[in-house]
Amino acid sequence: MHIDVLTLFPEMISGVFNASILKKAQEKEKFSYNLVNFRDYSENKHMKVDDYPYGGGAGMVLTPQPVFDAVDAVANDKQTDPRVILMCPQGETYNQQKAQELAEEDHLVFICGHYEGYDERIREHLVTDEISIGDYVLTGGELGAMVVIDSVVRLLPDVLGNEESAPEDSFSTGLLEHPHYTRPADFRGMKVPDILLSGDHAKIAEWRRRESLKRTYERRKDLFDEKCLSEADKKILGKK
Amino acid sequence: MHIDVLTLFPEMISGVFNASILKKAQEKEKFSYNLVNFRDYSENKHMKVDDYPYGGGAGMVLTPQPVFDAVDAVANDKQTDPRVILMCPQGETYNQQKAQELAEEDHLVFICGHYEGYDERIREHLVTDEISIGDYVLTGGELGAMVVIDSVVRLLPDVLGNEESAPEDSFSTGLLEHPHYTRPADFRGMKVPDILLSGDHAKIAEWRRRESLKRTYERRKDLFDEKCLSEADKKILGKK
Repeated sequence: MHIDVLTLFPEMISGVFNASILKKAQEKEKFSYNLVNFRDYSENKHMKVDDYPYGGGAGMVLTPQPVFDAVDAVANDKQTDPRVILMCPQGETYNQQKAQELAEEDHLVFICGHYEGYDERIREHLVTDEISIGDYVLTGGELGAMVVIDSVVRLLPDVLGNEESAPEDSFSTGLLEHPHYTRPADFRGMKVPDILLSGDHAKIAEWRRRESLKRTYERRKDLFDEKCLSEADKKILGKK
Repeated sequence: MHIDVLTLFPEMISGVFNASILKKAQEKEKFSYNLVNFRDYSENKHMKVDDYPYGGGAGMVLTPQPVFDAVDAVANDKQTDPRVILMCPQGETYNQQKAQELAEEDHLVFICGHYEGYDERIREHLVTDEISIGDYVLTGGELGAMVVIDSVVRLLPDVLGNEESAPEDSFSTGLLEHPHYTRPADFRGMKVPDILLSGDHAKIAEWRRRESLKRTYERRKDLFDEKCLSEADKKILGKK
């Protein structure tokens, strides 16, 4: 998979892309990226990329020309018809299902604005997806793009090693994870539950399933309601 | 405000903190930060910070000792009783209201795990808040911490200049923003709506409000339903 990120702040991004799983994915040649400062595509003599909004009002608006030309250039370069993703608060709320959908693509282009608004023609005629990572205000699209890219690249085949792959990841099973404990069994007087030290694997599996169901119910009833309880689950909860 | 970030991957973070608004906030002395590699606090002779889970299973678990000691150290250093925030998928879903709450604090400590789980005693006895930035699986807590920090620091007094402050930011007004347009009025045959070029400010304000209501209704009915429509809004929508 190749990813182009259009941004006015490329220096924000390299540190994240060159660490941990994203770094390993590049070493395994599963993922490559290019940071494109779309200011370089501005035809304005001062290399401006924004201008005052028509109709008045505070704030600046990104002009369409540099963004259209930068997307054209990266699509031509790769000879692809990429998914073009606009990071914006008005977009669809990102989730794991969308991550899986994007992981099927060969070429993604992210457009990151930075406190300016986007000219509406970018939204209407250039992008294929508008994504928001959550209901909070960020300074720019860069952090959102990094979040989406991390969640997508780790789903690509052979990117995660055994150690990092988590078949019981939250949001993959539909339930929140059960509690984990490791050494020491007693830390500053705080103890590990006896059951986990018992060696009784059936009982441990039951305890974990019950804790997972309980935690999901208590913290995220919205996720829990979507889940159909199996007969085994009902039995476990009956024992609670 | 001072922020400590406990992470095994400090190199992921500096690029984001030293750019744009977060950089300006430091220059204005509204915000300072420290990246703490909690591996430095490990008492293990190999400086290990994780171990196998009690009760068996895949994946590693962060041991309590280095994390407790690192939090103790940064709290002692600042002589504060900080908010200690665990970034994890099981946490409460982050939103703008939580950002405003955290912006009232003087000292925040973020704990970022990295594909390992957390020993439950960290969750139960050390942290004050557990936060998830959304329903998707990320490799580590670092991106989530940066998202929270960006959204909090930009709310601190005098951090944003006029240009960057957006009183009509999405999620602050409860509605998605209306479309923006800037020069040129005709770009590759795509035109700016006539109304925005009319100079009729009352009509422009009405158009913007209508588009904002419409967009929120079409894209985020969950936000729209929470909003009480004013008499003026009902009149505007009646004209649609």
